[in-house]
Amino acid sequence: MTAPTIQGVYETVLYAPDVPAAARFYRDVLGLLPHGAPDDAAWKFRLPSGAMLLLFDAQESSEAGRSVPAHGCTGQGHIAFHVKDIEAWREALRAHGVTIEHEHTWAPGGRSLYVRDPAGNSVEFVQGEVWA
Amino acid sequence: MTAPTIQGVYETVLYAPDVPAAARFYRDVLGLLPHGAPDDAAWKFRLPSGAMLLLFDAQESSEAGRSVPAHGCTGQGHIAFHVKDIEAWREALRAHGVTIEHEHTWAPGGRSLYVRDPAGNSVEFVQGEVWA
Repeated sequence: MTAPTIQGVYETVLYAPDVPAAARFYRDVLGLLPHGAPDDAAWKFRLPSGAMLLLFDAQESSEAGRSVPAHGCTGQGHIAFHVKDIEAWREALRAHGVTIEHEHTWAPGGRSLYVRDPAGNSVEFVQGEVWA
Repeated sequence: MTAPTIQGVYETVLYAPDVPAAARFYRDVLGLLPHGAPDDAAWKFRLPSGAMLLLFDAQESSEAGRSVPAHGCTGQGHIAFHVKDIEAWREALRAHGVTIEHEHTWAPGGRSLYVRDPAGNSVEFVQGEVWA
């Protein structure tokens, strides 16, 4: 038995009242790869890093009696993605008609663009290091 | 300019009404490394993968007029961590008096342990592959 350590985040979850509408943003604008069969309550995306982004209907996922523990949040969540070329993202977002809500240059030199997904979640694109 | 691609998740956020109480669980039970100066509204953890886990007070982070876009959720969120030795985690959780809410063996061979953090968020430890 080895010392218990955390390697990294395997699943990050965002919630949306209309999962397919939000999921289309992650698939069509962000270019993420849907994993498995999507349905109205859950879409799953496999990222190049191997980690998963899960998009859930909180009303469904918070129901008791599921095969796995219940969870579900309301409100505007947040996720930040690590990207290589933030200027390419600025162009791609513009081409898709997505409004850039905010831009930020951080002390360690990293830069961020912020947009909203269709559910109102705050989606950040980060190039470089943000956390000093 | 290169084609816009997502590398992976840089920041995953969980919310807690009592951030320091929840943060102590991630620091003391999960062994995560706090990053920067914590305060009552936000703790940040740097994972071995380089990604960040952020623990926020949703009431504070959802206030308008912050230097970055507002976000904040209520309810029980979910995160899954990738681990190397799930049996070591079972022992460590038991030693800390943390109740294992659920165990799951998945079709692709991966295994999961589920616990709750002090804020009620569903925290999953995953060894191996869960998503076929």
